[in-house]
Amino acid sequence: MSRPEHHFDLRIYWEDTDAGGVVFFVNYLKFFERARTEWLRELGFSQEHWRAMGTAFVVSNVQIRYLQPAKLDDRLHITTRVKHSGNASLTLNQLATRDSVVVCESEVRLGFVDTQNLRPCRLPADFLSQIA
Amino acid sequence: MSRPEHHFDLRIYWEDTDAGGVVFFVNYLKFFERARTEWLRELGFSQEHWRAMGTAFVVSNVQIRYLQPAKLDDRLHITTRVKHSGNASLTLNQLATRDSVVVCESEVRLGFVDTQNLRPCRLPADFLSQIA
Amino acid sequence: MSRPEHHFDLRIYWEDTDAGGVVFFVNYLKFFERARTEWLRELGFSQEHWRAMGTAFVVSNVQIRYLQPAKLDDRLHITTRVKHSGNASLTLNQLATRDSVVVCESEVRLGFVDTQNLRPCRLPADFLSQIA
Amino acid sequence: MSRPEHHFDLRIYWEDTDAGGVVFFVNYLKFFERARTEWLRELGFSQEHWRAMGTAFVVSNVQIRYLQPAKLDDRLHITTRVKHSGNASLTLNQLATRDSVVVCESEVRLGFVDTQNLRPCRLPADFLSQIA
Repeated sequence: MSRPEHHFDLRIYWEDTDAGGVVFFVNYLKFFERARTEWLRELGFSQEHWRAMGTAFVVSNVQIRYLQPAKLDDRLHITTRVKHSGNASLTLNQLATRDSVVVCESEVRLGFVDTQNLRPCRLPADFLSQIA
Repeated sequence: MSRPEHHFDLRIYWEDTDAGGVVFFVNYLKFFERARTEWLRELGFSQEHWRAMGTAFVVSNVQIRYLQPAKLDDRLHITTRVKHSGNASLTLNQLATRDSVVVCESEVRLGFVDTQNLRPCRLPADFLSQIA
Repeated sequence: MSRPEHHFDLRIYWEDTDAGGVVFFVNYLKFFERARTEWLRELGFSQEHWRAMGTAFVVSNVQIRYLQPAKLDDRLHITTRVKHSGNASLTLNQLATRDSVVVCESEVRLGFVDTQNLRPCRLPADFLSQIA
Repeated sequence: MSRPEHHFDLRIYWEDTDAGGVVFFVNYLKFFERARTEWLRELGFSQEHWRAMGTAFVVSNVQIRYLQPAKLDDRLHITTRVKHSGNASLTLNQLATRDSVVVCESEVRLGFVDTQNLRPCRLPADFLSQIA
């Protein structure tokens, strides 16, 4: 059985573009972060939930590949899939598409940490069962 | 008869916050810009429409007042109203509220210009009739 | 005797621009914030200093006027002057110039607060004597 | 003979941080971009130079690894080295350090393109000889 996917839509505004007339490449990382936050919220784990527990996901690695430019007013669709889950980390694949054409793709590794000391922390069982 | 209002909702993400634990004050200007773009789009005047005509709205003046901090995961509601429309300019009032409490309010003056020379340009009659 | 001015230079990078080919209007507020932070640091009051004291400056009001576009690779000069200092607030005038031509001007009112409760807090005498 | 390195310093401001109290991970890509622009400028190839030629570098791939958090007021040092240069592309290694401790490291692949059609374009010989 394949793992479930999460879907998230967003619009490109002036703030997202640069003088090349397209989306500033850095901003795709923001789009993928928004999608992760919405994915976690839909699973019942808002950022507020993690903070109340004294834990947080922190980005430890990103690989990102830019395939097509996106422009002002474009509507992008972000697909998020769990590639791998460890004891204290999560690896996600995230795609940005426009009209089903891949614009940008990434692999993001998140560490799960105690926010007091930034040390790795075991992912809770209720969360792991949700994403299995 | 009162002029119509436009309503727009948005979510606060990590990218919007700063080390003070709240929304970075600068980012409210982005939120108000998103709301203006959506307001124009709903009136039938997307950014693409203006660009195809060789015109654009440019911000000439902003007054902004910060009343309450907003936080990660907050949902803000942006209300946009036309305060005044001139031959080649538009003054808007924009409010950001959370659960009906005003977080931030602004008055934004937009000049309407020819993108070739950045000179003021008459607002089209079909647009003025829409916002009357 | 006129109050002293603070001077700060910065460069425009891709991140600062938008698809209009010029600096995204929102970003001038970042430039003015950088200049305020450097001004405070030079007076001996780094952000770290205020945080250690449990206090912070928070922006309560901004008026900003856009006069000229700035572009990629431009070098802007930010001039900061104290317009008024109160018991728990500070009003600054800040100008962005390029080759002595004013690109953008602002008046920024900062409240000085206790970071625990965000209540107004008396500006320390050693700070007030520095900016007198 | 080893290839030359480029060095660039920057300061962390409020705009760079997030509610976690540290630098928002996305912003390191902006810091590395600033360093690339300054590196090119020092070699005699400003962004304006490339634009006048109708060419541009576009980011095609980034790998980034986060090792330590950076904070408000930190001073980061960016080191840029050419890892590989092709006919129409360039691969750079970029490091962000604070007091000689590596905070973040990246490998960035840039394509060199004709800005009219975004097709790959041969890197000019005078540029290649500079970075050899």
